[in-house]
Amino acid sequence: MTDVVAGIDIGGTNAVFGLTDKNGKVLCESSLKTSDYPEFQDFVNAAISEISDLEEKTDTNLIGIGIGAPNGNYARGTIEHAVNLAWKGIVPIAEKFKEILAVEVKITNDANAAAVGEKVFGGAKNCDDFVVLTLGTGLGSGFYINGRLLYGHSGFAGEAGHILLVPNGRDCGCGQKGCAESYVSATGICRTAFELLTNSREYSILRNYSYNDLTSKIIYEAAIIGDEIAILAFEKTAEYLGRVIADIVMFSSPEKIFLFGGLANAGDMLINPAREYAKGFALENMKDTFEIELSQIPAANAAVLGAAALIWEEKAK
Amino acid sequence: MTDVVAGIDIGGTNAVFGLTDKNGKVLCESSLKTSDYPEFQDFVNAAISEISDLEEKTDTNLIGIGIGAPNGNYARGTIEHAVNLAWKGIVPIAEKFKEILAVEVKITNDANAAAVGEKVFGGAKNCDDFVVLTLGTGLGSGFYINGRLLYGHSGFAGEAGHILLVPNGRDCGCGQKGCAESYVSATGICRTAFELLTNSREYSILRNYSYNDLTSKIIYEAAIIGDEIAILAFEKTAEYLGRVIADIVMFSSPEKIFLFGGLANAGDMLINPAREYAKGFALENMKDTFEIELSQIPAANAAVLGAAALIWEEKAK
Repeated sequence: MTDVVAGIDIGGTNAVFGLTDKNGKVLCESSLKTSDYPEFQDFVNAAISEISDLEEKTDTNLIGIGIGAPNGNYARGTIEHAVNLAWKGIVPIAEKFKEILAVEVKITNDANAAAVGEKVFGGAKNCDDFVVLTLGTGLGSGFYINGRLLYGHSGFAGEAGHILLVPNGRDCGCGQKGCAESYVSATGICRTAFELLTNSREYSILRNYSYNDLTSKIIYEAAIIGDEIAILAFEKTAEYLGRVIADIVMFSSPEKIFLFGGLANAGDMLINPAREYAKGFALENMKDTFEIELSQIPAANAAVLGAAALIWEEKAK
Repeated sequence: MTDVVAGIDIGGTNAVFGLTDKNGKVLCESSLKTSDYPEFQDFVNAAISEISDLEEKTDTNLIGIGIGAPNGNYARGTIEHAVNLAWKGIVPIAEKFKEILAVEVKITNDANAAAVGEKVFGGAKNCDDFVVLTLGTGLGSGFYINGRLLYGHSGFAGEAGHILLVPNGRDCGCGQKGCAESYVSATGICRTAFELLTNSREYSILRNYSYNDLTSKIIYEAAIIGDEIAILAFEKTAEYLGRVIADIVMFSSPEKIFLFGGLANAGDMLINPAREYAKGFALENMKDTFEIELSQIPAANAAVLGAAALIWEEKAK
C-alpha cells in the first residue's frame, strides 16, 4: 500500500481535503462547506470521515495530516482567533485529529503552507532563504531562513501583509491603516483602480463596474486590451509590491521571492515592473542579490499540497 | 596565561582595539585614527602592531580577532564598498590579519556585532529570537532567529534602518527617500526637531541652535526641563520607532527588542511611548508577544565587546 499524507486547506468558505504521495501527486480530493459546521467538534467528525473515505477509496496507508488554516499555530497545533471561521477562541485541531486517527498532525497558516509546498515540491527545492508571497484576497507571506520556516517567538512571524506601506493610508481588515495588503492583493488593486478612476478623467471600461463587481481579473483583461486606467492600476500595484519586496530584502535578504495566487497570474505585467521597483528601492549592495519568480506549485492543488508538505518535509529529513 | 580575544571596532573616524576575556571583561584598549591610513595595507600593519603591543603588555594569549565594521561581510571576511572608509571596493581584512597573526578572524557589521555582544555578554543570553537596534548617527539592526545571527543570502540581511517609513520622505544617506534611519536616529530626531520648529510658532530654546550644532543630547536636556518642541520631537520619534518595531514584529516576531546607542540613552522618555505605539501598530495576536528593553552591554565598551563576541560565541559552542 502506498503511504499518503492528507493535506487539508481550511478557508472561511470551504475545507478541501486531498491525499498526496511523496512526489507531490494529489491522488484524490473532496471538500466540505466550512460554514455548515459552526460547532468545531462536528467539523472534526465530518473531516475524519472524509479522510477515511478517501483512504479507503484509494487503498492507501495514511501516515500523517498537514493542515493550512488562517491563524494556524504550528507550535501549539491550534487555530487561534481566526476571524473568518465560526470557531471562536483557540481550537486544538491537531490534538483532535491525532486522538482518532493516531498519525502525526501539523498545522500552520495558509501562506506558510504555501512556502513549505514551494520548498518540498516547487521551485525552492535547492533554496534555503526564500519568501513566498500569496497575492489573493489578502497578502500572505511565508519565510524560509537558513532552510527553516520562520515562526518567531510568537509562532506568527512572517506577516508581510501587515507591514506599514502608507502611513494613515487605506483601512485594513486588521483594524490598522495603510497595511501592505490593502494595496498589494486582488482587493488592493481594485481599490487602486477606483482611486485612479476618481482622480482621472480618462475613459475606461472599468467605469462600468460597481465596487462589488470589479475583480483583479477584469482589470487584467482590460489592461491587456490597452485600457489606460487598468494599465496604470497594475503599474501602481507593481510599485507597491516593489516596496514590500525591498523591505523584505532589507530584513531577511532572501535569494528568491516567489509570487503565488490570483493576482500573480498577471505574470510579467506585474513581475517585470515590480522587479525594477524593488531593485530601485533596495540598498546598493542588495540590488542584485534576489530574484522574483512565479510559484512553481500548480495552482489547482497548491493549498492541499502545501499543507501536506508540512508532513512530507519532516519525513525527508 | 589568560586566553584573550581582540575586538576591533572600525569606524570612519577611529578604529578601537580591545583585549577581552571570556567573561566579557575588557582588559585594555587602544585606538588609531582610521583616516591616517588611506592605504589598507598600512592600516593592517598598524593594527597588528597595536594588537601585539596590547597582548605583550597584558601578558595574555591571543586566540582570535573579532571585527565590527561598516559593510563587514561575515561570509567572505571582507569590508565591501563602505562609504565612510577610505578603502574602496572590497578589502579582504580577515585574510590579512590571519596571514600574520595565525588566529581565527571574524568580521560583521557594527549592528550585528552589537547583537552578538547582547547574546554572549548582555541581556539576550537566554533569548533565541531578538533584535538589537543601534540608534546612533544612523539606525542599525542585528537579528537573531532560532539562536543564530541572521545574514541572509547576501550576507547583508537585517537592515531595518533602510525599510521605507515615509513614502517620498526625507533624503537618506543611502540615496533613497524616507528610510527609517532618516527619522529614528540621533540625526533623525534633530531633523524632526527642525521640522517642528518650522511648522509651529511655539517658543523653544532649540531655536538658538544651528542645524550643525543641534544634537539629540541637547534635545533631551531641553525636554527634561519642559521645552514643548523638544518633548514633541521625542514623542514623534517614539512614534516612528514604534512603527519600525511593529514592522520588525510582523517580520520575525522577536521576543525582545534591545535599544542601544546615543539616542537610547533617553531611556523611558523614548521607550515608554515607543512601546505603546509599537503595540498599537502590531496585529492583534502579536501585541503582547514582545518586549522593548535597553541594551545591557556597557556603552563604553560595547563595540569592542560585540566584535570580540563573534569569536567567544564560537568558543562557547
